[in-house]
Amino acid sequence: MKVSILGHGVVGKGVWEMLQANSGYTVRTVLVKKGEKTEDFMTESFDDVLVDDSELVIECMGGIDPAFEFTSKCLEAGKSLITSNKALVAAHGIDLMNIANRKGVSFIFSAACGGAIPILQNLLRARKTDSIIWAGGILNGTTNFILDSMDCKGTSFDDALAEAKRLGYAEANPTADISGMDTMRKVMLISMVAYDILPNFDYNIEGIESVSAADFEVARSLGCTIRLVGKCGLSDSGRLYAYVEPVVCSMAEAYYSIHSNTNLAQYTGKNAGLMSFMGQGAGRYPTASAILRDVTSVAEGQKQMLSPKCLVGFACNSSKECEHKYFVRTDAESMKALSSKIETEKVVCEKDGLVFAITKAVTVKDMHDAAAEVRRKGANIFFAAAKEA
Amino acid sequence: MKVSILGHGVVGKGVWEMLQANSGYTVRTVLVKKGEKTEDFMTESFDDVLVDDSELVIECMGGIDPAFEFTSKCLEAGKSLITSNKALVAAHGIDLMNIANRKGVSFIFSAACGGAIPILQNLLRARKTDSIIWAGGILNGTTNFILDSMDCKGTSFDDALAEAKRLGYAEANPTADISGMDTMRKVMLISMVAYDILPNFDYNIEGIESVSAADFEVARSLGCTIRLVGKCGLSDSGRLYAYVEPVVCSMAEAYYSIHSNTNLAQYTGKNAGLMSFMGQGAGRYPTASAILRDVTSVAEGQKQMLSPKCLVGFACNSSKECEHKYFVRTDAESMKALSSKIETEKVVCEKDGLVFAITKAVTVKDMHDAAAEVRRKGANIFFAAAKEA
Repeated sequence: MKVSILGHGVVGKGVWEMLQANSGYTVRTVLVKKGEKTEDFMTESFDDVLVDDSELVIECMGGIDPAFEFTSKCLEAGKSLITSNKALVAAHGIDLMNIANRKGVSFIFSAACGGAIPILQNLLRARKTDSIIWAGGILNGTTNFILDSMDCKGTSFDDALAEAKRLGYAEANPTADISGMDTMRKVMLISMVAYDILPNFDYNIEGIESVSAADFEVARSLGCTIRLVGKCGLSDSGRLYAYVEPVVCSMAEAYYSIHSNTNLAQYTGKNAGLMSFMGQGAGRYPTASAILRDVTSVAEGQKQMLSPKCLVGFACNSSKECEHKYFVRTDAESMKALSSKIETEKVVCEKDGLVFAITKAVTVKDMHDAAAEVRRKGANIFFAAAKEA
Repeated sequence: MKVSILGHGVVGKGVWEMLQANSGYTVRTVLVKKGEKTEDFMTESFDDVLVDDSELVIECMGGIDPAFEFTSKCLEAGKSLITSNKALVAAHGIDLMNIANRKGVSFIFSAACGGAIPILQNLLRARKTDSIIWAGGILNGTTNFILDSMDCKGTSFDDALAEAKRLGYAEANPTADISGMDTMRKVMLISMVAYDILPNFDYNIEGIESVSAADFEVARSLGCTIRLVGKCGLSDSGRLYAYVEPVVCSMAEAYYSIHSNTNLAQYTGKNAGLMSFMGQGAGRYPTASAILRDVTSVAEGQKQMLSPKCLVGFACNSSKECEHKYFVRTDAESMKALSSKIETEKVVCEKDGLVFAITKAVTVKDMHDAAAEVRRKGANIFFAAAKEA
């Protein structure tokens, strides 16, 4: 199979190396950045890829512009497409699926969610004969690395982030990681594959910007640590829910044992029960390995991971499937105001003017809304799901 | 697709129910035990299945005789075959693969290893473009249930086994589970799929017959618990190794957090890194869900999980990849004799005439051979891999 690659950075170079090591594949053209062409097979002009005789293009550039323009042109030119670009698929996956269907070529994106972890392909296989009750997990290595370092090594947030950058886990601009947006994009991909619904922006995303050493200290006193988790699922009435938020989890929960930049993707099938997949969620060779598995899938004839039925839909985070307790830390005055909307089950401790409490069960929507209200008044608040605390 | 089912027990009935719930499949004939025919679609005579117009037969009888006769006849009659029967595939997988290839039909057996966990299909996909360094894990729910109950609840071996039987995890005759043979059969399937080699009987199998409450007590004092693990892999020189043995594992290891009858299947890919899959390793609906995923695969055209190159091969458990420390418990005299062959690194404790020690690193073959020697002299010994103890 003749293959071209868009991008020669961390992932693109790994894909190129793995294709060299596997027989049956010839790399035609590799699109590199201006001034980085060092080999004959490289080009700095996208048009060279468009007119070459490759049957399959692998996009490893990242970002939406010009990735969307380039990938849609490749599909229009009758080339199959593999991408590891979650921002691209979250923003334009349905557009790309439609072009690919019209042209009769493949559009596959396993590596865009979970890195080496084959969660999307396994969900796609499972949903054909089982009902997926919910799916999600720890889907961002950078934030997990930061949370794990803060808890296990007592590192400050800023030092942990700097270390994550040094190790190549975090981007130069880590806003999408820290804010939970990267996790949400992966949840969007999961939701498209599992439910044929791309959740629109009526969902709740809480990242890890607010977490502090004191939160870990109090969580530890409860036998817990803190992780960032994204989830989506269907309520009993068939409505989609989708959200991202920190979770205070005990040793009995699988999240607890996910360390460093490891990811954990899970789903519960009505028949299969809880299924968990752990592995490297990012990095050159793990991501390249997922892309190479997709190359095999394309070679074997897989056309799509998305159904033509896939549509944008509203996520509703106020169903009973979205109800749980929360661990909350804020100042005494804000906690008092919060308590008028969300009942406190118990105060865990008070120190330095801060109150740490466990709420009664509320919906995700109500908790995220209440926290936004506290912040609108200029106060700080940290909250995390606390199912077992 | 027209489907017939051999067997209407725990798994067969689950498959039947799931096929009813999915459109696109019609169940033609279900083979039941003598005296159990209660519906028109059931038969007590295998010949009725052989002559019906089903394109696919799902074998859920268990055992080798008459399962091998029935399944090979179905393949010869041009019907595709799905089975969850690990004993059948370990004993006759290569024979069945050859018949299926000759007749151009499918032979798929995901559910025979790991229950709901899709380890075999994911290994098959991964190995096409990555090198599988090793694969294995906690592959038997009955033994994990017993070990977990002994550690977490202080249950005796016999009570835990009785409870496992009551809950339907253990067979009336649990010898294959307890001896490690069931785990080894699953390792054999993994080895066939990952390496095209069916390990012959020159391997080392240690089950959980020798484990005692005292072993858990001492393991706990080291911050560890005990699990039963099966593994296979390739040495640097390309030789296969394959073995089953208890493992003393610390909280830092994934094995530690596998409770009750959950299974954990893992592999390390040269590029993907360590990949872990957790889920229900047995039970009606988990196993049926894996079979239904295979039904989709057959419907989509998958023919084989085994390569025509797959052959019986010798497993060699004396390579450096098979070297690690061991936790050993035996009487003082036997420990002295053992120490002449396997160096002791430290004695953990001595009580009631028993010595608990950690050895220096030795090969799996040397440790299993030395333990067999102790037993030949009529003494008791328990040993478990202890990489981090």
